[in-house]
Amino acid sequence: MIFFKVASLYLSDWLCQLSVTSDKNINIAKARTSIELASKQGASLVILPEMWNCPYSTDYFAEFAETLDAHDITAAPSCSMLSEVASREGITIIGGSIPERSGGKLFNTCCVFAPNGELLAKHRKMHMFDIDIVGDISFKESDIFVPGEEPTIIDTDVGRIGVGICHDIRFPELAMVYRARGCHLICYPGAFNVSTGEALWELEQRARAVDNQLYVATCSPSRDSAGSYTIWGHSTLVNPFGEIVATSGHDQTIIVTEVDYSAVQCTRDALPIWKQRREDVYRFID
Amino acid sequence: MIFFKVASLYLSDWLCQLSVTSDKNINIAKARTSIELASKQGASLVILPEMWNCPYSTDYFAEFAETLDAHDITAAPSCSMLSEVASREGITIIGGSIPERSGGKLFNTCCVFAPNGELLAKHRKMHMFDIDIVGDISFKESDIFVPGEEPTIIDTDVGRIGVGICHDIRFPELAMVYRARGCHLICYPGAFNVSTGEALWELEQRARAVDNQLYVATCSPSRDSAGSYTIWGHSTLVNPFGEIVATSGHDQTIIVTEVDYSAVQCTRDALPIWKQRREDVYRFID
Repeated sequence: MIFFKVASLYLSDWLCQLSVTSDKNINIAKARTSIELASKQGASLVILPEMWNCPYSTDYFAEFAETLDAHDITAAPSCSMLSEVASREGITIIGGSIPERSGGKLFNTCCVFAPNGELLAKHRKMHMFDIDIVGDISFKESDIFVPGEEPTIIDTDVGRIGVGICHDIRFPELAMVYRARGCHLICYPGAFNVSTGEALWELEQRARAVDNQLYVATCSPSRDSAGSYTIWGHSTLVNPFGEIVATSGHDQTIIVTEVDYSAVQCTRDALPIWKQRREDVYRFID
Repeated sequence: MIFFKVASLYLSDWLCQLSVTSDKNINIAKARTSIELASKQGASLVILPEMWNCPYSTDYFAEFAETLDAHDITAAPSCSMLSEVASREGITIIGGSIPERSGGKLFNTCCVFAPNGELLAKHRKMHMFDIDIVGDISFKESDIFVPGEEPTIIDTDVGRIGVGICHDIRFPELAMVYRARGCHLICYPGAFNVSTGEALWELEQRARAVDNQLYVATCSPSRDSAGSYTIWGHSTLVNPFGEIVATSGHDQTIIVTEVDYSAVQCTRDALPIWKQRREDVYRFID
């Protein structure tokens, strides 16, 4: 819990790049082991990948979906595990995402748990990944999922955090909303594919970090997930100056790294782009 | 003039990365020679660097300033030359920037000339470069220049172009305004320095191109400019997918490259992020 030891400047930040299988129980067990491992080494914040309990494939989303009721998550095995581990280890968990069933609809949803096990927030992916590159990749997430209606900002033991899921990172506006509302870190569980991953994944993360002068942390499944969708991997932490603090390849791994929030203020003091915006000319409504 | 030959899909695009001296006449002569050279090789659009007629130093801005009256530019030798060359060669010129004197104030201004020599538009740099990195670089442009009041969009023979100057590139909002108003190319004459250039110059260009799915062209002075401000160089063209089409080092050079506007629509069709924006949640007012 370095975050508290060093005058609120540091926290240990774990990104768990998991290999996802078509057996939900195995996925839950793997995630539990990784989180415990991270916690044993002092992590106060753990981030999981998008669709960590389910292969990223339209064949599985409905079958793997859970009902996420904040007052009773006993019927949701993936979330019950996250809640239990968060509470036992005393850590904050940005729970990647899983398919959520609600009112007959499916959402791509990230659950955030406090160190007491409480479900702090659910972020439902707001921007659907509908892509059609002829001869390369075609995928229409909006055929299956319903988009969420609002940004998600959470005050945690390790600071104010904004959450986006994968394709949400392509929209500068969402990151601007988080900056405007005081976030120092945006977490994007993601599952970019090999078609757009190499060109865009790192670029999007660095752009969001630099434009808003805050930290960006991403977490992806590893490449050997089941299904036809080939994952790019490369979970990464970027600092407010756009530098890559830590990153991974595409294999299953855990990254541990430190987030120094003082870099946020330092960057903003050196180059105060937020104050230099011309709100008399253009303006953002959130 | 390939642009017209290939069904409006291509244009030759020249970026002239000039070495700037403390003799204005020499700078004007150099720029003229470079533009003529570009035109001889078929360029229909030429972009010059920020402050191409003047060292990037507070010691020179007032002395090198010109009065830019669209109806009579004979008293402005830098602009008269651009108008004359544009007309003689039948090309469009995005005239980098020079110090402009108007109503007792100084502006950092880009003049755009049509193939008939007409002054099509003036873009006055909207965001002042005020930076203070302890032990590295400190510069306060707002001590000298007054910022411009509006974005600049120009319909030219080579398409609808948005203009920003250097630090303007750090503001995603300005590029979004240009995207919203139908630009397919944003030109940023710039003069990034070695302190922030390596970390940010390429990243900013690629981010603006990818987020708005359009071309971004930048043009910088070369490194051996007079004065204490060490230029980063690296004039670049980025396509709508964020790929670098052409770039330079930091020495004086001319880049010639082709812009294929069909890539704009192709990228937007494949991944329609503009339509996927959640204007019910956040919105931009320009």
